[in-house]
Amino acid sequence: MGAQSPAGLGVTPSDSSASPIPADHAGVTDLFAVLAYGEISAFYRLSEEATLSPTLRGKVAVARMAAAELAHFERLDAALSARGADVYAAMAPFTRALDDYHRSTDPSTWLESMVKFHVGDGIAADFYREIAGALSPDVAAVVRDVLADTGHSEFVVEEVRRAVAASRSERDRLTLWGRRLLGEAITQAQYVMAQRDELTELVLAATGDLNGIATLFEHMQSAHAERMAVLGL
Amino acid sequence: MGAQSPAGLGVTPSDSSASPIPADHAGVTDLFAVLAYGEISAFYRLSEEATLSPTLRGKVAVARMAAAELAHFERLDAALSARGADVYAAMAPFTRALDDYHRSTDPSTWLESMVKFHVGDGIAADFYREIAGALSPDVAAVVRDVLADTGHSEFVVEEVRRAVAASRSERDRLTLWGRRLLGEAITQAQYVMAQRDELTELVLAATGDLNGIATLFEHMQSAHAERMAVLGL
Repeated sequence: MGAQSPAGLGVTPSDSSASPIPADHAGVTDLFAVLAYGEISAFYRLSEEATLSPTLRGKVAVARMAAAELAHFERLDAALSARGADVYAAMAPFTRALDDYHRSTDPSTWLESMVKFHVGDGIAADFYREIAGALSPDVAAVVRDVLADTGHSEFVVEEVRRAVAASRSERDRLTLWGRRLLGEAITQAQYVMAQRDELTELVLAATGDLNGIATLFEHMQSAHAERMAVLGL
Repeated sequence: MGAQSPAGLGVTPSDSSASPIPADHAGVTDLFAVLAYGEISAFYRLSEEATLSPTLRGKVAVARMAAAELAHFERLDAALSARGADVYAAMAPFTRALDDYHRSTDPSTWLESMVKFHVGDGIAADFYREIAGALSPDVAAVVRDVLADTGHSEFVVEEVRRAVAASRSERDRLTLWGRRLLGEAITQAQYVMAQRDELTELVLAATGDLNGIATLFEHMQSAHAERMAVLGL
C-alpha cells in the first residue's frame, strides 16, 4: 500500500482529546493482520500485473513497488510477533475479503493496473491512516510507516497523465475504472469490519460512532476525487 | 540467483598468476547485464510460481526470495550506471536466451519450482562465480555479491527433502527434473556466450581456452550432483 494520501483528510475522532485506544486492544492485532495481508496481496497482484507492462522499464518499476510492499509486510510481521501473534493465523480471517476485492478489480490493461495501484491503495491508506489517529503512538507509528509513500507514485502519475492527456477515450475509461475501485474498496472495507467484532470496535472507538464512520467514508470520497485529479482524471 | 554453491569448484584460469581481466573489458558490461536480466526474470518467475504454493507461508517465503533477487538487480543497475551503461539497453541482447530458458523449464508443481530455484540458479551461480575468479577485484566483488546466498535456501531444502523422503515417485520425478534443468541451463549458457563476442572473449580469458570452458562445464556438473544430493535427490 504505497500510494500517497492527500495531506490531511480533516477527520478526527469525535473527541480528539480522548485517550488513545490502548495498544493491547484486541482489534490492534486484527488491524496489523489485515494490513499485512493487504501488503502480501499487493506484492503478488503487482507482480502479476507487471506482465501488462509494455516495457522492461515498467516491469522493473513494478518489481520495485512490489518489494516495497514486502518491506511493509516485514514490519507488520515483526509487530505481530512482538504482540505474541502468529502472522499467518492472524491474517486468515481477512484473506477472503481482500482476495475478493482484487478479483473484482482485476485490471485488463497496464494503465488500469497503474490507476489501481495509485487510487485503490490510496483509498485504503486514507482509511487506515484515519484509524491510526486514534491509536496509541507506538501502534500508530507502525500503521503510518507501512502506509508511507514509497516514492514510486511519481512513476505511476507520469505514466497515467501522459496517456490520458493523449487520449480522451482512455481518460473516460479510466475515470469509470477509478469510480469502480472506490465502490469495491468501500464494499470490502465494510465487509472486513463486519467480519471481526474486535476490528469493528476499534474502528468505532477511532471514529467516535456510526456517524463518525459515515463522515470518514465521505472524506475518503473527496480524497479519492483529489487523487483522480492528480492523475488527470 | 540466490542459490548457494558448494564451496570451491576447484577450477582456476589456466594461468592463475596472470593479471586479472581489466575492469574496462567490454565483456564486463555484458556480464553485469546478463546477471541483471537474470535477477529481474527470477523475480517474476518466482512471483508467478508462488501461485503453486499450497500455503500462505510458502507464498511469503517466495516473496522474500523474489525481493532478494531485486536487491541484487539494484546492485547491478548501480554498477552498470557507474560504467556509463544504461541497464535496459545493456540487458536487451540477453532477454531472449533467458526467457527461452524459463519457458523451457516452466515448473508445473510447487516442488519443481523449489528445485528450479535451488538447482537452476545454483548452476548459473557456479558459472558466473568461476568467471569472477579471473576478474579485477572490484568487478569480482559485484558478481560475488549478487550471487551470494540470501539465506532462503534453507526453506527450499527443507520443503524438498521432506517431500522426497515421503515419496519415492516424487523423488524420481524431481531427479529427472533436475537433470533437465542442467541440460537447459548449459544450452542457454552456450547460446548467450555465442551471441556476444565481448562476453565470449571474457569467458575465454577467464577460463584460459576452449579446454578451460569444457573443464568448467564438467565441474558445473559435479557441483550440480552435490546440490541434488543435498536435496535428497
